[in-house]
Amino acid sequence: MFITTVTPRFGDMDFLGHINNTVPAVWFELARNPLWRIFVPDFSRSHQYWPLIMAHTDYDFIEQLYFNDDVEIRSWITCIGVKSFTVHQEARQKGRLCVKGNAVIVHYDFKNKQSTPLPEDKKKLLAEHMKPK
Amino acid sequence: MFITTVTPRFGDMDFLGHINNTVPAVWFELARNPLWRIFVPDFSRSHQYWPLIMAHTDYDFIEQLYFNDDVEIRSWITCIGVKSFTVHQEARQKGRLCVKGNAVIVHYDFKNKQSTPLPEDKKKLLAEHMKPK
Amino acid sequence: MFITTVTPRFGDMDFLGHINNTVPAVWFELARNPLWRIFVPDFSRSHQYWPLIMAHTDYDFIEQLYFNDDVEIRSWITCIGVKSFTVHQEARQKGRLCVKGNAVIVHYDFKNKQSTPLPEDKKKLLAEHMKPK
Amino acid sequence: MFITTVTPRFGDMDFLGHINNTVPAVWFELARNPLWRIFVPDFSRSHQYWPLIMAHTDYDFIEQLYFNDDVEIRSWITCIGVKSFTVHQEARQKGRLCVKGNAVIVHYDFKNKQSTPLPEDKKKLLAEHMKPK
Repeated sequence: MFITTVTPRFGDMDFLGHINNTVPAVWFELARNPLWRIFVPDFSRSHQYWPLIMAHTDYDFIEQLYFNDDVEIRSWITCIGVKSFTVHQEARQKGRLCVKGNAVIVHYDFKNKQSTPLPEDKKKLLAEHMKPK
Repeated sequence: MFITTVTPRFGDMDFLGHINNTVPAVWFELARNPLWRIFVPDFSRSHQYWPLIMAHTDYDFIEQLYFNDDVEIRSWITCIGVKSFTVHQEARQKGRLCVKGNAVIVHYDFKNKQSTPLPEDKKKLLAEHMKPK
Repeated sequence: MFITTVTPRFGDMDFLGHINNTVPAVWFELARNPLWRIFVPDFSRSHQYWPLIMAHTDYDFIEQLYFNDDVEIRSWITCIGVKSFTVHQEARQKGRLCVKGNAVIVHYDFKNKQSTPLPEDKKKLLAEHMKPK
Repeated sequence: MFITTVTPRFGDMDFLGHINNTVPAVWFELARNPLWRIFVPDFSRSHQYWPLIMAHTDYDFIEQLYFNDDVEIRSWITCIGVKSFTVHQEARQKGRLCVKGNAVIVHYDFKNKQSTPLPEDKKKLLAEHMKPK
């Protein structure tokens, strides 16, 4: 499990006085940073071999999120396939589960525009963050 | 069906030279503007009775979106329930279907913090935009 | 002069019921698309020679912008220097001037990390959009 | 002085492999959170008396910001006027000063749509964060 804490910004609220539904997508992406490090440990901007592409995301909005308090985001791996893996993420504020969601990420060769098998060593590193059943 | 056209912005691209996965969430929200008008035709900023809240969104990323060309977003209603309805949306670039997704929107009383039945007249207006099977 | 029209999105409003101050920065970037085309007419995602970098932006917030109406953005060139040029932009809603701002953009060689002189042919194309005094 | 640390998100980078110029506007807004607390210490979403409005922002882009490292944002007050105050902010990455900017914020009565004098007690609290000359 990875834990990331984010502080809401005034403009993250919309007119309804709660965090807009598009904002958790951005927070969840930020909370996946440690996963990028598994695949690209020595990330540098000249790197031409980013090996991941997003195939699917979903978000369930369970409780409203507000401006006042920090948000804790927990991220787990829930599925490791041949060419893709799934991340499950939860956003909590003051202990309340507010948003949960999934991202399906494909191991991808941008040059040849095709999915490729996940390397075994990466699978092992992902497996360390598997969500307990 | 509603059709909305958006023009990608330079910063909508990420390092991979394609539109970042969080951007279609923003575009789909924009493309739901005509639905807001069904419920709040004379929207003004002092309005305290916004009657809708987001319960779920999902996105399938089928093809990559790029900076160069406008994106056409089509929106349909696919389900009208007692207290909620579902919007299906598709983003196309140069005729290619790139992203499709759904939003489940609940008729909601923010004052009393509870979902409430969709009014019959609103159901009829939503039904005009039902996706053909 | 370039004219670009943008439609506000529900989430562009913040809690105060007006467009958040960070949003015009995004709209102004979008409205500079025609300027990018002067320098990179046949933009493609594999292009490694993007020749421009942002040196300065400023924004004066004159009137509040709201959700209800489209926003017209006008963009002019106000200064053409040896290695940089300045874009002046104005956002209007229902005829009211709401935001005005400037962007100073430098002709830049990303490979060698240094500014370079603006080519004469580009200067001529920029000059066609000079703001009348 | 207030210090806020932000972690760049993958999508904060644009195609050029650096942080897009619209992103520091969002980071600087986040870093002004402690200033909001001076005026609205017990912020709650039902609060109808938010007393501040943005009049001006500017940003100087000195060095490029990248994805790899956290960004430290320092915020000071540089001017306290009768009805407004100015915040100066700097973004540093690995010790390098990358962006600096200013925000002019007006004490404002949204109900009557007019600027109002800064209360003396708020001026004193702001003065504690004055930038040394």
